Amino acid sequence: MSESSGGLRSDLGNVVLVGQKPVMNYVIAALTLFERGSKTIVIKARGKSISRAVDTAEILRRSFVSDAYVKDVKISTETFTVDNKTRSVSSIEITLSKQT
Amino acid sequence: MSESSGGLRSDLGNVVLVGQKPVMNYVIAALTLFERGSKTIVIKARGKSISRAVDTAEILRRSFVSDAYVKDVKISTETFTVDNKTRSVSSIEITLSKQT
Repeated sequence: MSESSGGLRSDLGNVVLVGQKPVMNYVIAALTLFERGSKTIVIKARGKSISRAVDTAEILRRSFVSDAYVKDVKISTETFTVDNKTRSVSSIEITLSKQT
Repeated sequence: MSESSGGLRSDLGNVVLVGQKPVMNYVIAALTLFERGSKTIVIKARGKSISRAVDTAEILRRSFVSDAYVKDVKISTETFTVDNKTRSVSSIEITLSKQT
């Protein structure tokens, strides 16, 4: 990935998938994407990690990238099958953009 | 509160504040608001309860009120002072509307 390809990079390259680690890990991951030239990043999480995804976006926006704003928040349900049982889990996608 | 006042009721009357109880408690609370005539309800939560708020909205929309849709999702940070220390907590507001 070249430093200048931020605008053309596929969606997948601009995604931070939030899990069980400390929130600052994800803040730094997102910050790195912005510093590499991305104008828009997506923070995703499922289940109990959803609140950590919101924390990530809010800490990033308030403390690190002051010109970033919440462009969109989507919530949805992902279903998958484990041992012939269908499970559902809520998910969130927070899109953050930089104004400049 | 009369049955027909849904459209005029103040915002506060259409809010479900999600906390630490089982998710179905909040689903039923939201369902009750819709059944009393509200066309739009708001599901709010702070901190770790945020993921439960998303679960509430998704369960309601998928299993109970099939013509409800997610009209808006806002995330923000609330700050408050405890023992002269400023604390910040993330919050979410999910607005659900009925199409009919």
